[in-house]
Amino acid sequence: MGWRGSVAEQPPRMRWWGWGDPTHPPGLPTHALSFLAKTVDVGQRPRPPVALSRVQVEASTLGEGKLDALRAIVGTELVRADHDERVFHAAGKGYPDLVRLRAGEPLGTPDAVVLPGSAEQLSAVIELCARSSLAVVPFGGGTSVVGGVEPLRGAHAGVIALDTSRMAELLALDEQSRTVTVGAGMRAPALEALLAKRGLTLGHYPQSYEYVSLGGCAATRSAGQASTGYGRFETMIAGLRMATPSGEIVLPAQPASAAGPSLRGLAIGSEGTLGVISELSLRVRAAPREQLYEGVFFESFDTGAQALRALAQQRAAPDVARLSDEAETRMSLALADSGGAKGRLGRLYLRARGYAEGCLAIFGWEGEQDQASARRQRSLQIVREHRGLTVGSSPGEAWRHGRFAAPYLRDELLTLGVMVETLETATQWSNLPRLYRAVADAIERSLREGGTPGLVMCHISHLYETGASLYFTFIAKQREGSEIEQWRAAKEAASEAIVTHDGTITHHHAVGRDHAPWMSAEVGDTGLRALRALKAELDPVGIMNPGKLVG
Amino acid sequence: MGWRGSVAEQPPRMRWWGWGDPTHPPGLPTHALSFLAKTVDVGQRPRPPVALSRVQVEASTLGEGKLDALRAIVGTELVRADHDERVFHAAGKGYPDLVRLRAGEPLGTPDAVVLPGSAEQLSAVIELCARSSLAVVPFGGGTSVVGGVEPLRGAHAGVIALDTSRMAELLALDEQSRTVTVGAGMRAPALEALLAKRGLTLGHYPQSYEYVSLGGCAATRSAGQASTGYGRFETMIAGLRMATPSGEIVLPAQPASAAGPSLRGLAIGSEGTLGVISELSLRVRAAPREQLYEGVFFESFDTGAQALRALAQQRAAPDVARLSDEAETRMSLALADSGGAKGRLGRLYLRARGYAEGCLAIFGWEGEQDQASARRQRSLQIVREHRGLTVGSSPGEAWRHGRFAAPYLRDELLTLGVMVETLETATQWSNLPRLYRAVADAIERSLREGGTPGLVMCHISHLYETGASLYFTFIAKQREGSEIEQWRAAKEAASEAIVTHDGTITHHHAVGRDHAPWMSAEVGDTGLRALRALKAELDPVGIMNPGKLVG
Repeated sequence: MGWRGSVAEQPPRMRWWGWGDPTHPPGLPTHALSFLAKTVDVGQRPRPPVALSRVQVEASTLGEGKLDALRAIVGTELVRADHDERVFHAAGKGYPDLVRLRAGEPLGTPDAVVLPGSAEQLSAVIELCARSSLAVVPFGGGTSVVGGVEPLRGAHAGVIALDTSRMAELLALDEQSRTVTVGAGMRAPALEALLAKRGLTLGHYPQSYEYVSLGGCAATRSAGQASTGYGRFETMIAGLRMATPSGEIVLPAQPASAAGPSLRGLAIGSEGTLGVISELSLRVRAAPREQLYEGVFFESFDTGAQALRALAQQRAAPDVARLSDEAETRMSLALADSGGAKGRLGRLYLRARGYAEGCLAIFGWEGEQDQASARRQRSLQIVREHRGLTVGSSPGEAWRHGRFAAPYLRDELLTLGVMVETLETATQWSNLPRLYRAVADAIERSLREGGTPGLVMCHISHLYETGASLYFTFIAKQREGSEIEQWRAAKEAASEAIVTHDGTITHHHAVGRDHAPWMSAEVGDTGLRALRALKAELDPVGIMNPGKLVG
Repeated sequence: MGWRGSVAEQPPRMRWWGWGDPTHPPGLPTHALSFLAKTVDVGQRPRPPVALSRVQVEASTLGEGKLDALRAIVGTELVRADHDERVFHAAGKGYPDLVRLRAGEPLGTPDAVVLPGSAEQLSAVIELCARSSLAVVPFGGGTSVVGGVEPLRGAHAGVIALDTSRMAELLALDEQSRTVTVGAGMRAPALEALLAKRGLTLGHYPQSYEYVSLGGCAATRSAGQASTGYGRFETMIAGLRMATPSGEIVLPAQPASAAGPSLRGLAIGSEGTLGVISELSLRVRAAPREQLYEGVFFESFDTGAQALRALAQQRAAPDVARLSDEAETRMSLALADSGGAKGRLGRLYLRARGYAEGCLAIFGWEGEQDQASARRQRSLQIVREHRGLTVGSSPGEAWRHGRFAAPYLRDELLTLGVMVETLETATQWSNLPRLYRAVADAIERSLREGGTPGLVMCHISHLYETGASLYFTFIAKQREGSEIEQWRAAKEAASEAIVTHDGTITHHHAVGRDHAPWMSAEVGDTGLRALRALKAELDPVGIMNPGKLVG
């Protein structure tokens, strides 16, 4: 394998105060602004982030002795304790993270950032930290939206951010078995670029795709936009290697096993609280030659949901399938609409057909040419049985084009004084309407009672035979001076509604700090004790990502 | 749901000394006997099992006080300590189990058999046992072939078999979500019978199908003959409830979640060492209207394996796919052949086409009529690209007809003084030929060196995109007086070959007692410590199925 050891280029460093590529053009188009003005108040004056140099950073608690010990393991240049580097690793990309960062007031910063270059260095760093009472916060792409990378130190003397970005090597490609082994710090696009050269793909596209690390996807039990077709990330993991304070867990690539409880299933989703995943063996597939994306209108969210259920249960689901509710559909149309004649005509047409208050779905089929087409035909037959109206490839292509853009949009809204947050859950098909209503109502009520009535939108995605996920987006005018309280009230209301209406507290964002209070509702007290016992064994001094997942 | 609470009839009790329905006709057909005589020596005289009354059973260590306490929970008639009942629960159905039982010398029997009727009674029994230092061996269908239900007591005062057969209720059917909730003691055929009335199926067909309990399938991470299409049993489990000495773990039905490490994945495969699964919520599917089974010849095991790999990786695999190696093919043909003209002509035909030393595969497609057909066409196109020769539906139908018959055949061979054992593993496609050769060689060598050269056969089944399982069957003349040593030598040789050649120690038979020595090779020392920590938390006094899985 000539390209063993290939390391793809890392993407440009993310904006420290927000999402993505620093060269991304700012600003919102006029029609988006006008939609916003009609929907929620926008703030009176723009609220840009403070200058980087003005972000508050406390003095590092790490003395030269500890820094030197860390340097001795990874190299002098790869232990960083300067202001900027500590700010870059101060938080993930959740709404409260961004509110705090933009104000220059993160909840804390790591005392140092350490960048091991191999699984061996990683183990040595963890060992040193366990001996020195240093908390370790694994930091991959830094894209957590649930407080998963907050630099909490618990009762420890200090906290380091363990940045995995140098562990980004391609270690092995087994083309016969269709598995690839990579360093856990490799970013998803870097792997796709390497695989593309061999006509292969992983097919994992979370919204954070452009920056997410593969180790982070494993540690957070990620699902991607195409996971209806390509499977959740956990289904792609054939093997892994995880460094814990009590030693390494090495689980080589295997198609399946009946040898006891799943240790893979324990490492996956452990969110850095048991150890740090250093390597992954992942299932890959032939890269699709055809990608067919299109829009379909349904008369209502309910009839659309029934169509999705039929697709999943007849095993005829597209690889990407998402159905917006009425509110999200209206917003999508407003944002897509340039105000031109074509948009107006399109709306007239839909009204004439009785779909004016309908719901837009995006479907995508990928694969060999004939296969993608045949599967599309079969899906659309079921869609038509549920009075779905195909509206061509433009909405599909528009969605593909903008599929990773929402976090950029969020930054613009924050500058305009608008809160925007997303949260998600999953449940059985029979419970979906009840859960949808309960969560949407809880968020709406919270916003209204807080004096900032907002817009709550939702889509169904990630189809399973037994159920699906619900993904909520809500926007409201920021309550200046109490942005975090405003957010927390809505988040808590939604979370309570989720667990009391039989949803999972998270379908793909993970637990982190934000969902930890609901883990007991999720797995029960005995379940929680089992998880804590596991942690006590693998991380006896409790240095691994304190305050996350199990509290 | 009018049929909530339905309890299907239990199958007739199994032969205590062997497999299955006591009314099953004994004896082997002449051509099978003649194949056997040509292949391995058969014993000089038949070796039937001893009479049930002659089976050795030691005095129960349970005094009336403990028996009364158990009776107070489940009812007087449902605590049984008579000779026969204790023998019925003395062992599973592995080869050494049967050798010992037929000789009237089990390795021990439970001191009592307890039959709780609900999850609440189950919890109360476990609590009582924890207080009373009584080991608990969960006993579902009693079909373990790896010593999973051996009545080991560890350091405890006594041991009970906890028979789940009364917990066999249908608790809920959610037709919208396509999930069914059942008591874990329900047998697989009973559930299929209930589901069939609603046009549904579970689709789980291990070879032990006729007797296996669903709880047992979960606890052992079972896979079935059709799991290439319907999925391994673990993929069918949407939710479960497990009673442990430290309390209940209740995980309701959910399509997917990102909330931490998988507790479902911990309970699944725990083999009764953490607790007893009391209820399961299972994904079901529409019952297939069409079932197309047929035989295909490949020129060699290797080209056949390449075809299977292509089928899996192009996601065109049949629901059932199994490819016999040359030795297993020869035996299948010999056993199927009545010696008539048709069989001879068939062989001539294959020889003429160059497949005389070839390998037989059985493929099966199930589903809606048009779908099963379309999928078959697609599979066969790939088969032809690998020079597979379709030989019609007779071999497919013959396989379907006899798919659960092998354990009956084993009983006949034991009576003839012939050892027959099966074992299995799984690995990546790229490693399959190497692992196949290593394991087959290890078994052959062990039998030869023990003075009883035998026949070693294998098939590939359970296709995954990244690999497949290898299922070995071997027969040899029994070494009278040292049957267990003969078996152990072959089993150890095979297990060592498996773990040193990167196979999993078990793909679907589970660990039990027989594979426990290889768990450290499977998951490593840190992994094993994690599993033991989990056990220490959920089963602090160590009453749950001692001596299995982790020690």
